[in-house]
Amino acid sequence: MKKRAKLRLAVALAVAGLLPVLASSLVGASGGIGPSLPPVIRITPPAPVFDDTKRLAELAARRKHVADAIGPKAMLVLFSAEPRVYTNDVDYQFRQENNLFYLTNLNQKRATLVLGPGNPQTPEILFLPRRSPAAETWTGHMYSAQEAAKLSGIKEIWEASEFEPFVSALRKHEAYRPKPENVLMSDRGSSPTVREGSLVARSDGGFETLFTAAGKNEASLFLLQFPREGESREYRQEQRFAADWTRTPAGFTIQNASPIFSEMRVRKSPMELELMQHAIDISIEAHERAWVAAANAKWEYEVDSAVAYVFKLRNADNWGYPDIVGCGVNATTLHYEESQGRCKPGDLLLMDVGAEYDHYSADVTRTTPVNGKFSPAQADIYQIIYDAQEAAAKAARPGATLSDLHRAATEVVKDGLLKLGLITDRKSDQHRIWFMHGTGHWLGMNVHDVGGGAKFEPGMVFTNEPGIYIRPDALDNLPKTAENEKFITAVRPAFEKYKGIGVRIEDDLVITPDGVRWMTGALPRSITEIEAFIARARREQRLR
Amino acid sequence: MKKRAKLRLAVALAVAGLLPVLASSLVGASGGIGPSLPPVIRITPPAPVFDDTKRLAELAARRKHVADAIGPKAMLVLFSAEPRVYTNDVDYQFRQENNLFYLTNLNQKRATLVLGPGNPQTPEILFLPRRSPAAETWTGHMYSAQEAAKLSGIKEIWEASEFEPFVSALRKHEAYRPKPENVLMSDRGSSPTVREGSLVARSDGGFETLFTAAGKNEASLFLLQFPREGESREYRQEQRFAADWTRTPAGFTIQNASPIFSEMRVRKSPMELELMQHAIDISIEAHERAWVAAANAKWEYEVDSAVAYVFKLRNADNWGYPDIVGCGVNATTLHYEESQGRCKPGDLLLMDVGAEYDHYSADVTRTTPVNGKFSPAQADIYQIIYDAQEAAAKAARPGATLSDLHRAATEVVKDGLLKLGLITDRKSDQHRIWFMHGTGHWLGMNVHDVGGGAKFEPGMVFTNEPGIYIRPDALDNLPKTAENEKFITAVRPAFEKYKGIGVRIEDDLVITPDGVRWMTGALPRSITEIEAFIARARREQRLR
Repeated sequence: MKKRAKLRLAVALAVAGLLPVLASSLVGASGGIGPSLPPVIRITPPAPVFDDTKRLAELAARRKHVADAIGPKAMLVLFSAEPRVYTNDVDYQFRQENNLFYLTNLNQKRATLVLGPGNPQTPEILFLPRRSPAAETWTGHMYSAQEAAKLSGIKEIWEASEFEPFVSALRKHEAYRPKPENVLMSDRGSSPTVREGSLVARSDGGFETLFTAAGKNEASLFLLQFPREGESREYRQEQRFAADWTRTPAGFTIQNASPIFSEMRVRKSPMELELMQHAIDISIEAHERAWVAAANAKWEYEVDSAVAYVFKLRNADNWGYPDIVGCGVNATTLHYEESQGRCKPGDLLLMDVGAEYDHYSADVTRTTPVNGKFSPAQADIYQIIYDAQEAAAKAARPGATLSDLHRAATEVVKDGLLKLGLITDRKSDQHRIWFMHGTGHWLGMNVHDVGGGAKFEPGMVFTNEPGIYIRPDALDNLPKTAENEKFITAVRPAFEKYKGIGVRIEDDLVITPDGVRWMTGALPRSITEIEAFIARARREQRLR
Repeated sequence: MKKRAKLRLAVALAVAGLLPVLASSLVGASGGIGPSLPPVIRITPPAPVFDDTKRLAELAARRKHVADAIGPKAMLVLFSAEPRVYTNDVDYQFRQENNLFYLTNLNQKRATLVLGPGNPQTPEILFLPRRSPAAETWTGHMYSAQEAAKLSGIKEIWEASEFEPFVSALRKHEAYRPKPENVLMSDRGSSPTVREGSLVARSDGGFETLFTAAGKNEASLFLLQFPREGESREYRQEQRFAADWTRTPAGFTIQNASPIFSEMRVRKSPMELELMQHAIDISIEAHERAWVAAANAKWEYEVDSAVAYVFKLRNADNWGYPDIVGCGVNATTLHYEESQGRCKPGDLLLMDVGAEYDHYSADVTRTTPVNGKFSPAQADIYQIIYDAQEAAAKAARPGATLSDLHRAATEVVKDGLLKLGLITDRKSDQHRIWFMHGTGHWLGMNVHDVGGGAKFEPGMVFTNEPGIYIRPDALDNLPKTAENEKFITAVRPAFEKYKGIGVRIEDDLVITPDGVRWMTGALPRSITEIEAFIARARREQRLR
């Protein structure tokens, strides 16, 4: 549903000319009249628009890749995400399970996809809840079979209630014929003029290959995440389904489908890169507007309100992860999500906020001075991180790994900390007191995306995010050893100078044939760029 | 954590004078300079500030009420809410389980409260995860025992890992002595100068009454929601705990604690009413700013961006339920949450949006004309709903029920629909084609709050929300009977006139000794008020 509205939006913007439309909407929402936004702020470009044929070809290719990976003796079942309860009868906004969305672009609850590549007649079946006027009166539009087919490209669609008897039959190695009224669409009758319910499934057979394999205990049932029962907080349906199936395996071995998707999703297609760029562009506007807001804000949540506003104004699905907006010492907590502190002139403001657009997350951090100028101590720390980021980006090219990135950043951080007097031994792990996280992770449908230890290839997207956090209690929390006492005495003067400063810079990079492209490159990053941006924004505001 | 920051905010606003502070923050976040907000918009008043002594006395009284209700032969266990996963390793913002928050004001994961009123020595024990510098570096501040005691008033605090062995001992009818290093606070050593870990629990005994009762199979273990296994999507910990306990009941019968809390929470204290009023005040500002935004918005989500902005700017916890922002025909879907449609002049805009503040939800709906003027047909429907609301409010007084409210509203709706020609028989259920939901529900920590069929008493809060929805497919979806064909023919002319119009008006009311108080009274509601508000807002914008 959302997808198509987004397409309409993009077209409308293209027709109307982007800026006037967006500017007027800003005015409306801010309650002012005339263009009240400093022109230095980068307005989010229009959302990407995809040719439907191209989009469907890509979805079909993804499904084919999965089908080839599991092979003809196997079946894959992908369930929709289960709703997440907020409290009592209120749920959070529905977010489709990533891999089902990756193969279908369907954002519908209770839809289930079955791939059975060994069956030449129905290699893919979509189970879809039937539309109900009563349900739609309450909670809105549900997909018709035609809409689901247009979004996903899947043409064999059965009513959701057919899933359980279908599965029962398979486990008995029996062909299954769905009730004709529950065949919402079939290749045999895919013309939209055929009334729903008057079709029959294209076939009730074709499972011979699967059943023969099962007869020899060689069939496989692929499910997401199955081996990690207990670990994962998602995929509980899959765990229950697998546990139930295991009681009567019927010749099937249950296998984890996740590595297949991990392998695919770590390489982003041009279409995926466009969506990710849009999520990043929305995030860039949010950062810039929040910096302007910070000049007059008293509280972190007031700064954060600019982010919430931009994400919704630009039709992001949501954040990709809860906003981190910390001023002063709160910048030294890595995942500080409360936004309940003061923002004072002289503070650094660390904002780690990223939008999610059409299931793809951005992940962007900047650390900026609330009053527009870095103090010398703040600049000392900032410059180390900036240099570490540069070094990490240089280490990123096809064939390298995220570990190479981290190593490159760490060397620069060690040099910097030694120079400032915050560590005494470059060969030790002392730097980990101040730089305690990794330099990068994969980015995609999850902010910490799939990909594991893969080597960089063109199209892979990852973050580059070194950080230094001089937590005021860091020295107090060190184990009381003689060695630590010596260290504490040595770094005490530098610690007192830099205490309470937290700096992280995080950019989103994509591997190219000869290195990287900074997808977040439009957002000011160096000390000079940030100070110039804030100064210009203030000048532009004064002129209004 | 949040609570205290809110207190600081309120104090700061009181000192600085409310308006200048808020105005400047608005300016910052909107990117303009000078006061860009039309003065007609009602700025949220300062957050309520409570005297800590009074607040703690109220929490203690709540706990005493529960203790009296379960009696000396029983024990109550309240677990913290389990985190809700967004995707992979990202969670939604933590929201404490309502009843644990109601008794403790603690917003900490993995805290557990045990009430054992038969034990004179430790009638209440709080199990609290121990602070960890490593965890706090990543995800922020955790309560110290002193902070937890200051927030909750509970002075017997053991480390969370003591819960399981404590419970095991109880089931064996054995006294339990926690490890001294795990007693974070005890009445014996509640002075903040006593170092954590050097205490011993005030007692390891006092359970004689409980054990004697258990020996006679007369003891009770109270848990939330236990009897509704399968139904509730929350309270799974409780279900697991109960299932495990039931295997070795040890003389305890498991009982549902929910009715005790339902009975208490349906009556709001003055402190609760102040918090609810603040949630409502934030929602009022959000509605008003969104109406102004709607004048220039092209898309529903642009209107919604004003809501997201105000909720965050005013430090709401969140929404109480996902925003419903529907223009034109989307207003006829009751829980339309997509916000992907166009907003056009001539459309009605139905907004059902309510903030949650400190665990209390508002629930407010207005239906306003995008272009500022109701059309005659829109006004016809609107006036019926307005009159129905007035009738419902008059029916609400001590001793009446939500059913009385609904009956009163329904009579007015029937009269109105008959007059407009949308029904033909006042004695039938025809009106339910256009008015298919109830007129009110309890409001509190949940938007659909506890209270069941209780009779109105002063302090009870509920919504008053009749609605009429002329869904374009409504007649097509009626069963094809002769009676329905006759009905369709009769109402067709009126249906064509009003097709696509959806109107709901929803206010939050509290019962007083002699009737009701409209907590949402500051938000324009009548046709005249709404048209005058929008006209004034536009005039004020033009003058800028």
